[in-house]
Amino acid sequence: MKCSKCGGLAVINLRQHRLRLCAEHFVEWFARFTQRTIETYKMFAPEDKVLVAVSGGKDSLALWDVLLALGYQAEGMYIGLGIDEGIDYSHKSLDFCRRFVAEHHPDAVLHVVDVESEYGQGIPTLARTTQRGRGKPCAVCGLVKRHIMNRVARDGGFAAIATGHNLDDEVAVLMQNTLHWQTGYLARQAPVLAERDGLARKVKPFARIYEREAAAYALVRGIDYIYDECPFAKGSTTNFYKELLNQLELNSTGAKQQFYLDFLRAREAGKVAFEEAGPVELHPCQRCGQPTTAAGLCAFCRLWE
Amino acid sequence: MKCSKCGGLAVINLRQHRLRLCAEHFVEWFARFTQRTIETYKMFAPEDKVLVAVSGGKDSLALWDVLLALGYQAEGMYIGLGIDEGIDYSHKSLDFCRRFVAEHHPDAVLHVVDVESEYGQGIPTLARTTQRGRGKPCAVCGLVKRHIMNRVARDGGFAAIATGHNLDDEVAVLMQNTLHWQTGYLARQAPVLAERDGLARKVKPFARIYEREAAAYALVRGIDYIYDECPFAKGSTTNFYKELLNQLELNSTGAKQQFYLDFLRAREAGKVAFEEAGPVELHPCQRCGQPTTAAGLCAFCRLWE
Repeated sequence: MKCSKCGGLAVINLRQHRLRLCAEHFVEWFARFTQRTIETYKMFAPEDKVLVAVSGGKDSLALWDVLLALGYQAEGMYIGLGIDEGIDYSHKSLDFCRRFVAEHHPDAVLHVVDVESEYGQGIPTLARTTQRGRGKPCAVCGLVKRHIMNRVARDGGFAAIATGHNLDDEVAVLMQNTLHWQTGYLARQAPVLAERDGLARKVKPFARIYEREAAAYALVRGIDYIYDECPFAKGSTTNFYKELLNQLELNSTGAKQQFYLDFLRAREAGKVAFEEAGPVELHPCQRCGQPTTAAGLCAFCRLWE
Repeated sequence: MKCSKCGGLAVINLRQHRLRLCAEHFVEWFARFTQRTIETYKMFAPEDKVLVAVSGGKDSLALWDVLLALGYQAEGMYIGLGIDEGIDYSHKSLDFCRRFVAEHHPDAVLHVVDVESEYGQGIPTLARTTQRGRGKPCAVCGLVKRHIMNRVARDGGFAAIATGHNLDDEVAVLMQNTLHWQTGYLARQAPVLAERDGLARKVKPFARIYEREAAAYALVRGIDYIYDECPFAKGSTTNFYKELLNQLELNSTGAKQQFYLDFLRAREAGKVAFEEAGPVELHPCQRCGQPTTAAGLCAFCRLWE
């Protein structure tokens, strides 16, 4: 397999782009493609400070790496969730983030917030002791992460929070929302969520990058990352949809990309319109000051009552 | 497994309805459910003459059977497509239709139109000799069937053409249209297509019936049908989507039904709106008089030029 650019040995076949690339040209293509996504969706500008939510996994570390390589002012943020589950998951994840900085970007800033030491309980305990966490801790975890990310972004003057969500993630969510015609979600799902009323802008520069491309980028760039996914994500609906979508892609190259991009285009052009959930009024939480729809305390602060 | 109605031996578990039924109560439920679908979507009234498109397969024969059992004025129409493909497909299909009438409804009227003897060529030859048939004969076949069905419905004064499309068929098409955000199709896909400008009304009384339910009905009622699907349908995209959707249903009971019915409800309630293809002007074909968008001859008549 020969590189479409230089004729050298190709390391990856980007079927949906009809490109085969060697390591060097793949890294170049990957950075340029990410840059183009940032510009196309007007995610942030070179002068903006961007907060990258890093988990120690391939997507978020690859994102941080490529943003720094492109010259963006990207600082990392790791949230220690206190998840052990017999594999010391959270500690290991943080180690991968720290090693990434030391080996690849010794001058980069990594913000670390440890939920357990800062608030008294990690996610698994919190999930067991609260109403919201019944069954699975994922709902509590999402809430806690959103709260902390928003706080750090606000306090640090960041223009946007960037997450490593890739095309496979986005398409799985789109599939789930579409199968249930969740029109409120379908009205909003996008590579960019605009800032509003104290909620920081959120962007997904990998929204058009396939998961296997992010993994290949990490590999080629020598980025060591945590292979395990969160133990609580095993058997999730999202993973089930990803499996179905892989079959779809295997049957028809580019099917995932087409599903997602055609959705964005059709909505943009007004060919499909989804009813948005009614406008909600946000006001500051009485304790933490973050925006909430609740009358007194926000859902995060209520967790610790 | 006990019948939810009488406690007798159940022959089928309708998981998405939380019903287990014996043969007798299943047949009763099946007829009542079909009746309810006809009424809910205002498909046709008891005084209407309905033309049932029969292929010799389980769905269309089950549909004709249940419509007659419900007392509707349902006549059958079989279109001989001249498909042999080494298994004598078309002749065998007609035999199953004739046997169904003889064994179950000796007074029922079956209209037979044989494409080869009436127009000179069967579908496979026609597909090979025309531009439109290149590659696969399915496009030509669809065109021919629509033309003949419409002609027979118009000439016979039928209020509607009923086809045996079941929920699995509908959901596979919905999946295909959604994955490509074919908004023009998504605006129209429905259990009823209204009559317009000489195009007969089309209805799908099995739009909420799972394929396995139609098969079970045929079995319990002792209806013999052709097991082979059309040899040209093998490996079709629709079959691939059906396979994916079966996995979805296995993972989450009722998922297919939910996907389809939520779609219809969300569209009906205006929670999702699709842009329709612009209105097209129809006028009579210069040769056959059937409605067409073309200036001179309709696509069907052009086939035989």
